[in-house]
Amino acid sequence: MSPELRVFPIEGLPEVEEGMKLGELIAERAELKAGDIVVISQKIVSKSEGRVRRLAEIEPSEQALELAKKLGKEAEIVELVLSESREILRAERGILVTETHHGFVCANAGIDTSNLPEEGTVCLLPLDPDTSARTIRKELPTAIEGPGVGVAGPSPLLSADPHPRPLPPAVVITDSFGRAWRLGQAEIAIGCAGLAPLDDWRGRTDALGRELSATAIAIADEIAAAADLVRVKDSGVPAVVIRGLQLYVIAEDGPGAAALRRPAEEDLFR
Amino acid sequence: MSPELRVFPIEGLPEVEEGMKLGELIAERAELKAGDIVVISQKIVSKSEGRVRRLAEIEPSEQALELAKKLGKEAEIVELVLSESREILRAERGILVTETHHGFVCANAGIDTSNLPEEGTVCLLPLDPDTSARTIRKELPTAIEGPGVGVAGPSPLLSADPHPRPLPPAVVITDSFGRAWRLGQAEIAIGCAGLAPLDDWRGRTDALGRELSATAIAIADEIAAAADLVRVKDSGVPAVVIRGLQLYVIAEDGPGAAALRRPAEEDLFR
Repeated sequence: MSPELRVFPIEGLPEVEEGMKLGELIAERAELKAGDIVVISQKIVSKSEGRVRRLAEIEPSEQALELAKKLGKEAEIVELVLSESREILRAERGILVTETHHGFVCANAGIDTSNLPEEGTVCLLPLDPDTSARTIRKELPTAIEGPGVGVAGPSPLLSADPHPRPLPPAVVITDSFGRAWRLGQAEIAIGCAGLAPLDDWRGRTDALGRELSATAIAIADEIAAAADLVRVKDSGVPAVVIRGLQLYVIAEDGPGAAALRRPAEEDLFR
Repeated sequence: MSPELRVFPIEGLPEVEEGMKLGELIAERAELKAGDIVVISQKIVSKSEGRVRRLAEIEPSEQALELAKKLGKEAEIVELVLSESREILRAERGILVTETHHGFVCANAGIDTSNLPEEGTVCLLPLDPDTSARTIRKELPTAIEGPGVGVAGPSPLLSADPHPRPLPPAVVITDSFGRAWRLGQAEIAIGCAGLAPLDDWRGRTDALGRELSATAIAIADEIAAAADLVRVKDSGVPAVVIRGLQLYVIAEDGPGAAALRRPAEEDLFR
């Protein structure tokens, strides 16, 4: 029996400012149940953590000035990209793709220049989105009612707790990244807590004993994408609930979205 | 007002064989409404189109024999990958990534070796998945009841029909592809009909007049990912309905998932 999913927005969140507790704001506005997954856009997490910068206060380095000229970008933004990155992967045709200090490969180190309340400010990614997700999860109430959690799943990552008990919902923090080979951005998970982020099929075989061709499924990224579908037409909805995926909700915080970053030495496309 | 999505599997489809009409099989088992999106796994589309091959009937070329030896793969499968591809992008560490004749960049040209009824057979991608989606859409009934379609949307791609009328559901054909930089496979759209595959934000600005940082959102790929979430724990569910996204359902078949393939000359990661 496959699950049925419901994906719905959390309405009525206020404009987020530094120091606000997102978990509490969300809990006041959504009737969360055990096994729910709360999906939150990166921007409000960054704002709550004070990761907003004024461009006027940024002093571009020589390297930033040169790159900015080459790419046709603002030098202050390039300076921020460089300070948020450990390696430049591409800097051509007006595009600056780096690996961030977290290990994300994306354009402009994920720095967001739109939809900020104050002109001349930009928003950086959270310093450690998995930690952000864990903090928010702690602020969410332990849901009493729900479809049950801790169901034994097919993956060793999934909790096989024989005594399901109420748990706080899982939290996923997302951002939209460009992809190699595909047009359009897709939402991915940059942080998560309480979720098995990867459904690992390695070692499992089909009915005829052949190894399954999908070796692992990026559950956390698929959750991010699903949540984005109720958000795209209204960028004012920064948080979404996914109900029906308790199979992947776990008691512990788990490995986080860090488990979805491909190590550089295993990546054939850099 | 943001939409609420429901994502649910279509249960009870038979083992698919060549010549079966998938649209009719689905219509008999799902009460589809106007504005629904039917998401179908590539494998049953390929099987219905006879895209199954017996490895014993494949004669590997010299190039296939060499590559197979280098990569530790079966020569017959490598031969099929080469015949399905226009360019080899990577052939190392046991991994063979090519660009298929369709223009998809993926491992093993999308050839599937698991979960086939007969030992020694493999399944190729459909010859033209957008055409497959259009064919299946024609087999689906024009839904009479539903939340209404043809709603004016934010994107020029979306239908702004002032006289909403019943329409057949949209169809999306999906497969799970690996990604650069991220671990785990994610489901993407390889074909679609009746859907605006890309929500294009280019030229739109935020409240302060700054260009929005997400230039286009890969709606069709996010739909594929959302559908996969109800499928992963049971690979026996090859078709899923997404209800609530009528915003992106269009009367015409539209550009298909071909619109999501990044042209090679614009791709910095090959």
